[in-house]
Amino acid sequence: MLGCGTVGGEVVRLLREQATELAARAGAPVELVGVAVRRPQRHADLGELVTADASGLVTRDDVDVVVEVIGGIEPARTLLLEALKAGKSVVTANKALLAEDGAALAEAADASGADLYYEASVAGAIPLLRPLRESLAGDRITRVAGIVNGTTNFILSAMTESGASYAEALEEATRLGYAEADPSADVDGYDAASKAAILASLAFHTRVTSADVHCEGIREVSAADIAAAAGMDCVIKLLAICERTPADGDTPESVSARVHPAMIPASHPLAAVDGAFNAVFVEAEAAGQLMFYGQGAGGAPTASAVLGDLVAVARNRTVGGRGPRESTYASLPVRPMGTVPTRYHVSLDVADRAGVLSTIAGEFARHGVSIAAVRQTGGRPDGGPARLVVVTHTAPEAALAATVEVIAGLDAVRGVESVLRVEDLGRKGVAG
Amino acid sequence: MLGCGTVGGEVVRLLREQATELAARAGAPVELVGVAVRRPQRHADLGELVTADASGLVTRDDVDVVVEVIGGIEPARTLLLEALKAGKSVVTANKALLAEDGAALAEAADASGADLYYEASVAGAIPLLRPLRESLAGDRITRVAGIVNGTTNFILSAMTESGASYAEALEEATRLGYAEADPSADVDGYDAASKAAILASLAFHTRVTSADVHCEGIREVSAADIAAAAGMDCVIKLLAICERTPADGDTPESVSARVHPAMIPASHPLAAVDGAFNAVFVEAEAAGQLMFYGQGAGGAPTASAVLGDLVAVARNRTVGGRGPRESTYASLPVRPMGTVPTRYHVSLDVADRAGVLSTIAGEFARHGVSIAAVRQTGGRPDGGPARLVVVTHTAPEAALAATVEVIAGLDAVRGVESVLRVEDLGRKGVAG
Repeated sequence: MLGCGTVGGEVVRLLREQATELAARAGAPVELVGVAVRRPQRHADLGELVTADASGLVTRDDVDVVVEVIGGIEPARTLLLEALKAGKSVVTANKALLAEDGAALAEAADASGADLYYEASVAGAIPLLRPLRESLAGDRITRVAGIVNGTTNFILSAMTESGASYAEALEEATRLGYAEADPSADVDGYDAASKAAILASLAFHTRVTSADVHCEGIREVSAADIAAAAGMDCVIKLLAICERTPADGDTPESVSARVHPAMIPASHPLAAVDGAFNAVFVEAEAAGQLMFYGQGAGGAPTASAVLGDLVAVARNRTVGGRGPRESTYASLPVRPMGTVPTRYHVSLDVADRAGVLSTIAGEFARHGVSIAAVRQTGGRPDGGPARLVVVTHTAPEAALAATVEVIAGLDAVRGVESVLRVEDLGRKGVAG
Repeated sequence: MLGCGTVGGEVVRLLREQATELAARAGAPVELVGVAVRRPQRHADLGELVTADASGLVTRDDVDVVVEVIGGIEPARTLLLEALKAGKSVVTANKALLAEDGAALAEAADASGADLYYEASVAGAIPLLRPLRESLAGDRITRVAGIVNGTTNFILSAMTESGASYAEALEEATRLGYAEADPSADVDGYDAASKAAILASLAFHTRVTSADVHCEGIREVSAADIAAAAGMDCVIKLLAICERTPADGDTPESVSARVHPAMIPASHPLAAVDGAFNAVFVEAEAAGQLMFYGQGAGGAPTASAVLGDLVAVARNRTVGGRGPRESTYASLPVRPMGTVPTRYHVSLDVADRAGVLSTIAGEFARHGVSIAAVRQTGGRPDGGPARLVVVTHTAPEAALAATVEVIAGLDAVRGVESVLRVEDLGRKGVAG
């Protein structure tokens, strides 16, 4: 095992507590023979198992499987490539590495015939990658969308419940241990984007990396945005959305992956996913809509996923055979975000005088952005400030951004209060 | 392929439409070489593929995998045993056969080294068996509970929404094609019981057959029961519940599997699962609580699960290796239902006179059934009929049944309106 933090500690505990059961399931004892950590003196409880020589450990003769729970790109990448080249199978929870350079790992695994499993890298304990990779291997997945980052979900839930600002909610999340001292990976959406890249790759049999994922975090989500959403019977969630777009005329079939905050109907099941929980909807042509829900992070849940993979790899070693290889045969083009159409909710402070609505509506039309609904409130007879809310039909981000830029410069517009994406997940026929 | 009804027809369609994709995923073309049906003349569209000689087909040299979608015990069992003995792998959706005699199939598969996959047998398109068997192989599953029969869920949903009687709701379900002409397998709970046996076997590494599953259907659920549940902010669902009970003193660890209607809180996510949808909660020690949701039946969703298995089996054939074998090493004793404690909601018509409550409470106490809550309504000053509702703490079925029998015979009791199990699924910490 490489690393021994929260997840690693739980892996050690479960390996010891369930030794007999794991052996029965794997067909052979699953024995921990070494743990590489940076500071061995901090892990006295591991006795002689502990070492600072990670590189030596991953190529040792008595090692069949390397479990990596260090995280981050290096030294994890170098160590796992060494392990795979030496024919050791790998079980990893490292979403950042897989999303950035999963291809190198997959190629190394294929070259030596080793296994590469990474269920724990997305949505913690929720079995999601195996269903995508194996259960739905006979179906055409069209969409994967959900909440895959517990920290941002906790912050947005807190803002929704208490009306707190982003800064206040982040402070509470940090105090309770849901956010790290440097929260950037979570709140800027990078963690969710890594997961989206992994999900899109598996769902669409296409190599999608974190660089392909359009990524917006939640720092800009304001209490006013939350209130605007509530006014529409909606809540704001940070969503990871991976979609396949069918061919259309000369435009070939393509895929897209994006992470951004979005308004979703308060009645949608995803709206009820609170705190540190994750939930992911998968849509496939024959299967229809599926939902997976559970704990997306934490030591024990993540260790459960690691151990499930470990048993699978051990069983492959025992009875022969190998898990599914990386499947990228489809190689579909990845669509740039500027061309991915979504709906928008635009909230403006405007002067309440004749012609304002017409001018603004004209700008939307001029940019080819079709308006679905308009609501104006709070205008005073003297032409004082009013709130104008515009909800659009689906429009490309580039067109919407250009529209908002022009509108913001209009005399009659005092300010752009909020611009939010709207996801009508319910339209796809979610029951319940 | 054996059989070509609703599911089989979809399997054929998808095999044809996705031939290129399936070949890329399996590592070799997946070709349909024969379809055995009882009346070949009805399947002219299959041309020369169709045959009435099922036994000849399953042992043919050019057959690697047998997909069985006939259903029922015979001739499916004989044909699949022949196929497995001949080294053909099997993909089946046959819950009744697996629940009654899965051991014979598993042994035949082990003897010849063939694969036996059956994801489609439980919860249609929802990936559930593979997560239980593989993703959670490193964890200790403590409970599997959910809605696994769409027909009864449709009927109970209709009764709840419209106040219809069981007979009226069944008639509607039959008219809309959700219930078969002979609805017994669904409404008497046998279908759900087969699924519970399969789920319990996988979850607890113990052979559980349909004969081990306590099974009550929904025929006796009355409009009054539905109303009584609504009065408690609950709904009635037909649940399949598989539980592991830890060792306690001299009593060894054991498992139980049961299917019965139960009151669950209206706020629980399972309460929102309407119509023909299925949803299953899985609880494991490290993973915590997981939920799986989707379409539990229908041609295309079931075919999706069949094809996922088919690709897995084909890949095993192509790259070598074999799927997980049946795992029954734990061999835990199966607890008889009389000793499985659940909570109860008992609704009585009583004479509203002094001493009635005391007498009734005394009978509960005498049988060791502890009362959690009592509510009396509708009494008239002249001692006219009143409604007395008693909710118990967990009690063994035998003790509750004995209590109700005595109470029903009391002078002051005009009638036992309803006796319903209560499942506090929310107590286990479901979020959302």
